[in-house]
Amino acid sequence: MTSEHSLQKNIQALGQAARDASHLLAQATAAQKEAALRAMAFALHTHSPQIQAANAQDVAAAVTKGLAPAFLDRLVLNEERIEAMAKALETVAAQPDPVGRVLATFQRPNGLAIQRISVPLGVIGVIYESRPNVTADAAGLCLKAGNAVILRGGSESFHSSTAILAALQEALTETGLPATAVQMVPTVDRAAVQALLALDRYIDVLIPRGGPQLLAEISAHSRIPVLKHLAGLCHTYIHQAADLEMAKNVVLNAKMRRTGICGATEVLLVDRAVYKTHLPTILAPLFAQGCEIRGDSETASLDARVKPSGEQDYDTEFLAAILAVKVVQDVEEALAHIAQHGTQHTEAIITEDTAVAGRFLREVDSAIVMHNASTQFADGGEFGMGAEMGIATGKLHARGPVGAEQLTTFKYWVQGNGQTRR
Amino acid sequence: MTSEHSLQKNIQALGQAARDASHLLAQATAAQKEAALRAMAFALHTHSPQIQAANAQDVAAAVTKGLAPAFLDRLVLNEERIEAMAKALETVAAQPDPVGRVLATFQRPNGLAIQRISVPLGVIGVIYESRPNVTADAAGLCLKAGNAVILRGGSESFHSSTAILAALQEALTETGLPATAVQMVPTVDRAAVQALLALDRYIDVLIPRGGPQLLAEISAHSRIPVLKHLAGLCHTYIHQAADLEMAKNVVLNAKMRRTGICGATEVLLVDRAVYKTHLPTILAPLFAQGCEIRGDSETASLDARVKPSGEQDYDTEFLAAILAVKVVQDVEEALAHIAQHGTQHTEAIITEDTAVAGRFLREVDSAIVMHNASTQFADGGEFGMGAEMGIATGKLHARGPVGAEQLTTFKYWVQGNGQTRR
Repeated sequence: MTSEHSLQKNIQALGQAARDASHLLAQATAAQKEAALRAMAFALHTHSPQIQAANAQDVAAAVTKGLAPAFLDRLVLNEERIEAMAKALETVAAQPDPVGRVLATFQRPNGLAIQRISVPLGVIGVIYESRPNVTADAAGLCLKAGNAVILRGGSESFHSSTAILAALQEALTETGLPATAVQMVPTVDRAAVQALLALDRYIDVLIPRGGPQLLAEISAHSRIPVLKHLAGLCHTYIHQAADLEMAKNVVLNAKMRRTGICGATEVLLVDRAVYKTHLPTILAPLFAQGCEIRGDSETASLDARVKPSGEQDYDTEFLAAILAVKVVQDVEEALAHIAQHGTQHTEAIITEDTAVAGRFLREVDSAIVMHNASTQFADGGEFGMGAEMGIATGKLHARGPVGAEQLTTFKYWVQGNGQTRR
Repeated sequence: MTSEHSLQKNIQALGQAARDASHLLAQATAAQKEAALRAMAFALHTHSPQIQAANAQDVAAAVTKGLAPAFLDRLVLNEERIEAMAKALETVAAQPDPVGRVLATFQRPNGLAIQRISVPLGVIGVIYESRPNVTADAAGLCLKAGNAVILRGGSESFHSSTAILAALQEALTETGLPATAVQMVPTVDRAAVQALLALDRYIDVLIPRGGPQLLAEISAHSRIPVLKHLAGLCHTYIHQAADLEMAKNVVLNAKMRRTGICGATEVLLVDRAVYKTHLPTILAPLFAQGCEIRGDSETASLDARVKPSGEQDYDTEFLAAILAVKVVQDVEEALAHIAQHGTQHTEAIITEDTAVAGRFLREVDSAIVMHNASTQFADGGEFGMGAEMGIATGKLHARGPVGAEQLTTFKYWVQGNGQTRR
């Protein structure tokens, strides 16, 4: 048996085990799932030393590789961050059970009672970056919704995720749910991803968190339906009727609060009527915080610190302290620019003109459209959903923040007393 | 320019036109869409002679080709069937607008007002069989939900569909909506399907109605998200506590009312405890109506007319007057058989035991699960949805009957007064 063949067999075994676990999970009670989630949170506490030791291995390797500080920052786990992971699981535990809700009822004239009932999706595959906290978040959300999950995190966080998984599985076993409810691809071998993508018999939904490259690979190798979580190239548009003080504060927050999250604003659009009066005020605190500004010629004419932008700057998710700025004629041009360059994630308008704001909300085809607020609010927690899997950028099934409720599907129960159709 | 290249350009132009139309449709009022749908219904009346003439061409060609009677039956359009198409459009017109509904609201402690609002999907591609009525149904449902649609019907119905399209587009133009809201691939060339599958820049969702072969082709050639409408290999299970008279009537209806629809029962499972007493009564009217019975050895032992079944009979969507019958030990075995052989479409149990019925409803992982009713009720109209696009057999987005409401997605409106995130 070649090692590739053996890898495929191993991954298939994960799939079969997940499928088996999913049948048990679908019938688990709300109380069972809540108890398991609380036990998982507790296990993160008790396993904290082992998790931190494993994480130290990952961090050391990443430092040796010379990976970027922002990358290292996302990788590091300390007591406080493990605490936060546990707290997220507690939050998910406390939420209402998303399974078994009656979503709609149709009482038919022929006496048939039809109910649309929420049910788990089944088995979910999650492919994500080297962010160890996602291991616990994804496991918790999937479990809450009665799904089995197969996790594949970035290879740089492999030891951390393995240690987290051990804690979670111990808790599952203690509370009587199958440990195979939460599994992880047990190797950093890239070939394992392709083996995972081939599991269309076992995996109902794939959640890729990453860039267009990951989606292209999935699209080329997999028949599994995808709930994509892709780029957030978010725009904030300063309309000519914007309140300048508000614009300044919101843009600073939207860009600089955290530059590495998908809801961070990457492109600022400003109406031509006000750019000369408004941009200097808006850009000043950005410069002060070390943000690089890449602007078109009109923007550049205002300040020598503005670097000239190229076309690619309006198509780049910087995830860094860089802001592309462009002057537009009016809301029409702003809408057209967003339609052409946006990633249908989150866009915001700043204006006191409610008619224009209404048009922006209606016409921008993004998962989240905001009026007078920071794009950094694009987050399931900020929406009140508890933890989130991420922000879905496709249009099917879930759009925007994905919490436990979004990890369910539904089926119809039809109850009769012998009805036949005419 | 090669002809293949020219075909691709033509299909791309359809895509661009659909995208442009979708922007207008997304902003169309409920009244505009209703008026357009009523005009479309009326236009089918006035164009009836042309539609019937075009249909006669298709039917003549199909007869020459020697296509099966069931196929011809689905292809033929007469006055009555055109009337039924018009009536379906009227029904869709009268339904409430599925767009602009507030699906959820979250009033946040920081003052942000968040609303989940239903919006159109955008551009939908529909690939379907040679059933000309689908041309009107699909166009009407997509329009109701504010979507532009590109239709690709079976080549044998090409002339019929072209004539129907002409009527629909005339009505759209009269009522001030873009004729490009409803378009059709203007050739029977198979290469056009591949060109369509490549339009991921323009098409938001693909709805394939057909068999596994079509889905495999899509999966191999397309990145467009799919709302699959595949096989209905439906089971009816006679539990030992079934009412025999009810079982007889329901099974006869589930199999024979119309054998060519996806909700027709293809496999009958019967508890071992009652097969000797119940099967003769249940099979008698099926034999009387000319249904072929393919049974396992226990079933065959009851009646010489039963043909021995092979394993493939339990994996075949006959769409004909053929029923595969299998004796099972109990509900456990019935559930296992359905999990292994079913297509997650529709399954029914006949029993007076509500505990067993409850278990069946909970554990069968199909879009529609029934208790004491005919699987032929698997239909949007019977659910009260008006017309339907079909029965979705995947788990993402819409599951079960797909009406206009299921052809929408949603976005979040976030309204603030300058909030920034901590």
